[in-house]
Amino acid sequence: MTDERYACGKAQLEKMGGGSVEEMLDNLKGLSPDIERMAVEFVFGEVVCRPGLDLRTREIATVAALTALGTAQVQLRAHIDTALNVGCTRDEIREVILQMMVYAGFPAALNGMAVAKEVFGMRDAKGQS
Amino acid sequence: MTDERYACGKAQLEKMGGGSVEEMLDNLKGLSPDIERMAVEFVFGEVVCRPGLDLRTREIATVAALTALGTAQVQLRAHIDTALNVGCTRDEIREVILQMMVYAGFPAALNGMAVAKEVFGMRDAKGQS
Amino acid sequence: MTDERYACGKAQLEKMGGGSVEEMLDNLKGLSPDIERMAVEFVFGEVVCRPGLDLRTREIATVAALTALGTAQVQLRAHIDTALNVGCTRDEIREVILQMMVYAGFPAALNGMAVAKEVFGMRDAKGQS
Amino acid sequence: MTDERYACGKAQLEKMGGGSVEEMLDNLKGLSPDIERMAVEFVFGEVVCRPGLDLRTREIATVAALTALGTAQVQLRAHIDTALNVGCTRDEIREVILQMMVYAGFPAALNGMAVAKEVFGMRDAKGQS
Amino acid sequence: MTDERYACGKAQLEKMGGGSVEEMLDNLKGLSPDIERMAVEFVFGEVVCRPGLDLRTREIATVAALTALGTAQVQLRAHIDTALNVGCTRDEIREVILQMMVYAGFPAALNGMAVAKEVFGMRDAKGQS
Amino acid sequence: MTDERYACGKAQLEKMGGGSVEEMLDNLKGLSPDIERMAVEFVFGEVVCRPGLDLRTREIATVAALTALGTAQVQLRAHIDTALNVGCTRDEIREVILQMMVYAGFPAALNGMAVAKEVFGMRDAKGQS
Repeated sequence: MTDERYACGKAQLEKMGGGSVEEMLDNLKGLSPDIERMAVEFVFGEVVCRPGLDLRTREIATVAALTALGTAQVQLRAHIDTALNVGCTRDEIREVILQMMVYAGFPAALNGMAVAKEVFGMRDAKGQS
Repeated sequence: MTDERYACGKAQLEKMGGGSVEEMLDNLKGLSPDIERMAVEFVFGEVVCRPGLDLRTREIATVAALTALGTAQVQLRAHIDTALNVGCTRDEIREVILQMMVYAGFPAALNGMAVAKEVFGMRDAKGQS
Repeated sequence: MTDERYACGKAQLEKMGGGSVEEMLDNLKGLSPDIERMAVEFVFGEVVCRPGLDLRTREIATVAALTALGTAQVQLRAHIDTALNVGCTRDEIREVILQMMVYAGFPAALNGMAVAKEVFGMRDAKGQS
Repeated sequence: MTDERYACGKAQLEKMGGGSVEEMLDNLKGLSPDIERMAVEFVFGEVVCRPGLDLRTREIATVAALTALGTAQVQLRAHIDTALNVGCTRDEIREVILQMMVYAGFPAALNGMAVAKEVFGMRDAKGQS
Repeated sequence: MTDERYACGKAQLEKMGGGSVEEMLDNLKGLSPDIERMAVEFVFGEVVCRPGLDLRTREIATVAALTALGTAQVQLRAHIDTALNVGCTRDEIREVILQMMVYAGFPAALNGMAVAKEVFGMRDAKGQS
Repeated sequence: MTDERYACGKAQLEKMGGGSVEEMLDNLKGLSPDIERMAVEFVFGEVVCRPGLDLRTREIATVAALTALGTAQVQLRAHIDTALNVGCTRDEIREVILQMMVYAGFPAALNGMAVAKEVFGMRDAKGQS
């Protein structure tokens, strides 16, 4: 039963071209297989795959939240990458991060922009948009 | 010069049917006219009015961020209201807030949902969608 | 399938004498049945019921974290109540909250203590330890 | 020995005209005499009384930090009151809070301003500057 | 008098096999001897040594809180190490961190797990459990 | 019009000997010229230049807030440097950071102290006070 949910989450990750998310999760597999499994099953197999919002909007919401929180730069990196995979443009990412200066202050927005810079660089190196 | 920027911000607020935001800002006018002026000029006249993202997307990003932060319930209320004014549906709001359980934990999402409940109730009372 | 997981979460809640948690979740049922279902299924049916830690230790960890975060007072109230249901003493709760002054500052500890005061009062009124 | 430190903290509180701080601490005395004692001894008897900064500067730093954190409104209220007791003007308080919009976002500054409004009102009622 | 309190804190640190905590504090001695002294005297000599909770439970509470906050990775590292010194198992540490996904979100738990991975690696290298 | 505001912000930065702030902003210019412009225009041209508080007090408030938040170490570094440029002493910086242990916990203060250590080292290398 849980295998079905895991497969479902993996399929969702695939749909999101989720290289960086998978890489992030794989890093912890050796240490805690449970947390990797729960992330795949619950986050991707039960939450993100829900029909109520398209993936582009979901990723914009996530980039906004992680920029505002300022405590999840590794995850922000993976989600900026995913946002670009599912159809957001670099300009949209910049705009969402910039807007966070209003709600979480300039440092949060500047730090988010620095993460975006890294992701854009990695994608440039791979010839990705 | 600053009057022009203020007018620009006010026009933007108008476009957003920004009743609850204006009310929130008006409350502080007597105490600090400067902060009200800066919010109107900067937030609405310079950031939110930028062309890079449509208003619906901007409000989704804001609802996501404020739900995740959990320290701005008054502002979350005003922005859920505004999100509905600019074309988001109640289901979309619920979905954005629900998704925050993944990135900021269940308490953040539950508390955001409680704020949404309040806003929906106020809008019901006024016959708004 | 999901009904089984829901039942499993409900049974776990029962074991925790989870009156205040259930009340908190029930409040949102009318607005978002999904979030209530996910909380029961995932939090209680998949995380809290795991064998690796006894319930008393789990509740101490939760009371510590929510006191430190300072953005989840409604949930802190429910968890202090649950902690007492599963065998923590009032002195232990006070001690965990007091210790948070070191890691999250005096305001976090003072605010946590104020929530504990409320819970102890409610339990006194019901003749609970 | 600890009595000496407690007396020392109480004297410091006196010097700060610390009515609202003492009231806040007294509220918890019945519940946890230890936390009240530690706050008086450590915060006032060992930290705030240190010679390196004058009290006016210490209170400005505290008002800034609590406004930015956004999770300690009860303590912010007590410290705005204390800041005015030790020589800050209302304009300075407003200015510190306003500046926090840059570092912690507009919601943090607006919420801080709302707390200041309350304190100013209470002081008006008592005929205090 | 303060020397006695310092000695008391040092003895407590010793009891906790507090190598990593002491190292962290020593790093700042050259810059601010006061903060090192206050940490030893107050945190270890007055709070952590209190009889109300055993050290294992105290460390679990601390690991939970620091994982949830996400702003104190250096301290989380020292406390995971200390938790293992005072009798927690690696499985218990993993379980506490995993549980934080519920209260502070998946990124907080994933980042906490990454810190645990580091500590476990350092202990493996020293042949510690 | 906006050029005038930009010039105004640049002049303010100059007055603050703002090398490290300018460097931090320049880093993002290539990625998002808008955020650099807005920071200069708004933060330095409209907020920090306001007459209500002297620069020394403004920087103390900022160092306090960023230490307490714990999510803006890059910005904290730039502001400790600026604080020293506009007349704060190293002892005052240490004292403000130390005080934050009370309001945001020991980890926040220890991490702030570590950033101060870095800045003092950089200034030593340049022969600055």
